[in-house]
Amino acid sequence: MVTVLGSVALDTIELPAGRKEVERLGGSGTFAALAASLFCRPVSLVGVVGFDFPEKYLRLLRKRGVLTRDVEQREDIKSFRWHGCYEQDLNRRKTVSVTPEILIGFSPVLSEEAANSEVFLLGNSAPQVQKVVLEQARRARLVLLDTMDIWIKNHLEELFSLFKKVDILLINDEEARLLHNEWNLVRVVEKVKEMAGVRALVVKRGSEGVLAFLDGEYFSLPAYPLCDICDPTGAGDTFVGALAGYLAGNQRLDGETFKKGLAYATVTASFCCESCGADRFASVSREDVEERFLKLQRVACF
Amino acid sequence: MVTVLGSVALDTIELPAGRKEVERLGGSGTFAALAASLFCRPVSLVGVVGFDFPEKYLRLLRKRGVLTRDVEQREDIKSFRWHGCYEQDLNRRKTVSVTPEILIGFSPVLSEEAANSEVFLLGNSAPQVQKVVLEQARRARLVLLDTMDIWIKNHLEELFSLFKKVDILLINDEEARLLHNEWNLVRVVEKVKEMAGVRALVVKRGSEGVLAFLDGEYFSLPAYPLCDICDPTGAGDTFVGALAGYLAGNQRLDGETFKKGLAYATVTASFCCESCGADRFASVSREDVEERFLKLQRVACF
Repeated sequence: MVTVLGSVALDTIELPAGRKEVERLGGSGTFAALAASLFCRPVSLVGVVGFDFPEKYLRLLRKRGVLTRDVEQREDIKSFRWHGCYEQDLNRRKTVSVTPEILIGFSPVLSEEAANSEVFLLGNSAPQVQKVVLEQARRARLVLLDTMDIWIKNHLEELFSLFKKVDILLINDEEARLLHNEWNLVRVVEKVKEMAGVRALVVKRGSEGVLAFLDGEYFSLPAYPLCDICDPTGAGDTFVGALAGYLAGNQRLDGETFKKGLAYATVTASFCCESCGADRFASVSREDVEERFLKLQRVACF
Repeated sequence: MVTVLGSVALDTIELPAGRKEVERLGGSGTFAALAASLFCRPVSLVGVVGFDFPEKYLRLLRKRGVLTRDVEQREDIKSFRWHGCYEQDLNRRKTVSVTPEILIGFSPVLSEEAANSEVFLLGNSAPQVQKVVLEQARRARLVLLDTMDIWIKNHLEELFSLFKKVDILLINDEEARLLHNEWNLVRVVEKVKEMAGVRALVVKRGSEGVLAFLDGEYFSLPAYPLCDICDPTGAGDTFVGALAGYLAGNQRLDGETFKKGLAYATVTASFCCESCGADRFASVSREDVEERFLKLQRVACF
């Protein structure tokens, strides 16, 4: 089983050409859990929602093999909402508004089942929450941690103490570059690696693909070529979730398994970009993923 | 044999940390011909130099299997010089000065040998010169054309008439994006393809790798991960030259051959980035290239 920590949100998204999507299912935990469930079931999602969270979305998650018993349902506060607006090229976005109140003081107590998971994905969230979850992991064989520049900048010590127990650290390229004021990503990887002391590092690069490092070896994969990108929200979380799910199904973490995991993560994330909202992404099947995996092989392997 | 058209230049390059390299061997034709000669010999270089061009550089080219009988040596004018200055991250450069006088009115008359070549690489130069060379091709089986935004913007009709006889069109991503004011490169490829009517299109993306299209199929390869980039001057020309050289050694142009060619081009260009000047790049051997080709396979193929 994979236990996934992350946000469960309602997203309002403004897209180019005046399109607006209101209160779609979103959140780093949601996307990651749905992606992981394509490869490994059940997935246990750890998060929190408010009294106004649509029951239909929780049903949808369960239908896709995502256990929701570790999604705390609070009666006294509204759900986490994010309202974002994309620029014309979909490459940049602004946050219009965010209501993070429900996340303040969130300190999950894991169910027996979630705590006994073999694989933990600590999705993008505050390091102190990631820490609380990791401390409850009893037999974790593999821990993945996704983070953002704001956590690295402002909670570096907390993150450092976590890194010691993390196998795979994930970060996106813009954050990684900002962090070290260095344009060459290979150098950035060298620096982060040294700093973090993790076994593997994955730099998510969106439409530029992925650069990764495991046990002294580099890996680099292009993105899946997409003509029509609808909404990239959640693509990074989907990538991370698919990687965790794929690796959960493999006992060993060696170069070949890792690369295959990165390839599966790449194609899974490509589906996420083609529609808006995790509720729509949920209709992707393992067969869809397998078909595109073979296509990516034809695109990228020589 | 491969016939390569392009500039033969003396480059002065300002690099980060105050490093300056003066009058190194440069030019689109020089880099491309040296790269092609790693895969197929002889290569015939078509270009022009002035009275002050160092004889040692012509000797170096010949030593590497590049015939120089189609390099016109003019006694009345100075060689083409380019003086460029890179920004700290090596990702952007400015032209400090350029002396293009020798290229004005350049209208090569090919030797028997060059005209009988099976593969033509019309390297980055004015479309009218590319046209003059192509008109002299007698038994061309494969024609590659590299171009820049300035030619597409200002000489579109001339280019269009050339495209009909071109098999593979090469362009870099920034130019392609500017051209169509479109950020999604797959869409750019679709538009350029439609516009150009060529069989294959290669979008060179520098450190982001390459996106290519042949007979209805996409291909995408990452760059070779490099920690130390010294000077990217000529990397695009090297890429193009290596692709032409590799394809010259293969009778058929199908997807698998094309992808391998792109991979060889990728690793050959990576060597170019590690030193300054085509004279230094000339020391790379086929064995070096083969070794890195296998490494790229481990990096990128799953």
